[in-house]
Amino acid sequence: MDDKKPAEDRDLVEPVEGEKYFHYYPQLVAVIGVMHNGKTNFAPCAWSTGLSYNPFLFGVSVGKDRFTHGVLTESDAFTVNFLDFHHFRLVRSLGRSSGAEIDKAKEFNVSYAMGKKAAAPVMDAAYYALECRKQEAHCFGDHTLFVGAVVLMHVSRSLAQAPILNTELVSPLLYLGVDHYITTDKASRACLKDLPFHYKRDKRR
Amino acid sequence: MDDKKPAEDRDLVEPVEGEKYFHYYPQLVAVIGVMHNGKTNFAPCAWSTGLSYNPFLFGVSVGKDRFTHGVLTESDAFTVNFLDFHHFRLVRSLGRSSGAEIDKAKEFNVSYAMGKKAAAPVMDAAYYALECRKQEAHCFGDHTLFVGAVVLMHVSRSLAQAPILNTELVSPLLYLGVDHYITTDKASRACLKDLPFHYKRDKRR
Repeated sequence: MDDKKPAEDRDLVEPVEGEKYFHYYPQLVAVIGVMHNGKTNFAPCAWSTGLSYNPFLFGVSVGKDRFTHGVLTESDAFTVNFLDFHHFRLVRSLGRSSGAEIDKAKEFNVSYAMGKKAAAPVMDAAYYALECRKQEAHCFGDHTLFVGAVVLMHVSRSLAQAPILNTELVSPLLYLGVDHYITTDKASRACLKDLPFHYKRDKRR
Repeated sequence: MDDKKPAEDRDLVEPVEGEKYFHYYPQLVAVIGVMHNGKTNFAPCAWSTGLSYNPFLFGVSVGKDRFTHGVLTESDAFTVNFLDFHHFRLVRSLGRSSGAEIDKAKEFNVSYAMGKKAAAPVMDAAYYALECRKQEAHCFGDHTLFVGAVVLMHVSRSLAQAPILNTELVSPLLYLGVDHYITTDKASRACLKDLPFHYKRDKRR
């Protein structure tokens, strides 16, 4: 895209009540795992983010009209599971169904084991998973942000030695909105870690 | 990655105080724009997420030790700017410098215009930008989540007609951590929107 064009080549759009907007996607998909009344529930979440390094806090935002919202509200723990792109059909099925109606793990053959430190299910297929103790919940508009303290990480052995994701081994699952999925172009990966910083006073912050 | 392997092929890692973890990346980069005491400031943010559809709320998480944290705390407005992958060097420079020491817009030739509805700078290069009125701020560990009510969107005209991003026209800028960047593989894009939902009671939620 030629962004040398003047900014006037942009439309100005006021958000309209009831409309949803997706141009700030793609977002990495996280699948939330929770155990409630003896039944597991798995729900994909595109609105998730790190919230703190120290302590390690991670947030997942869930719509108030979702079944998952109710079970997360009543649970003390949840997991966050990251899946390779080739699972996009499973993730879409998990997203376009409701734990109020079916047992998603049975219906979609999701294999899992209970967490070691948090009472929530960890998906076997995840290349990376976070066991979280629910720390707090904040209502923002029509969603609630559930904040988890990460108590244990599951990392595929082939990935664990590198500090960042090996995109030769994993193709992370990204969501574009409206049931569209995409992954990364590993050939595009660029590293600038050996360039000097621009800080004048501190070498690194 | 062969995720048919049993889950025992994963390492279990307890988060260590002071360590940072990046296996839940890539995350889309958003550049936060703010105006403070007559000077603009631009800072990339990988920890950003949608928070509500209705009203349209968007959150950016900023480390408490950052200059941007101070100016966001004192400001009533900010912008969120999304840039094509080819700007990764600029974004890295914006992230590895501090508005406490330099005027980043001057130093790195960032052209911008002030928002129409929020008193914060919108980057000319952005294919999509949100003007936000700061609504609230929540401290989570070593970061603060600043919550913005989106009052105006700037959308590149060539993208505005489609509800989701046209990945033939834009290569979104994703951050892997530790100064590594990557973008999407447009050939991988998959659409499942015409498949039936699995809901039994509701056709769509």
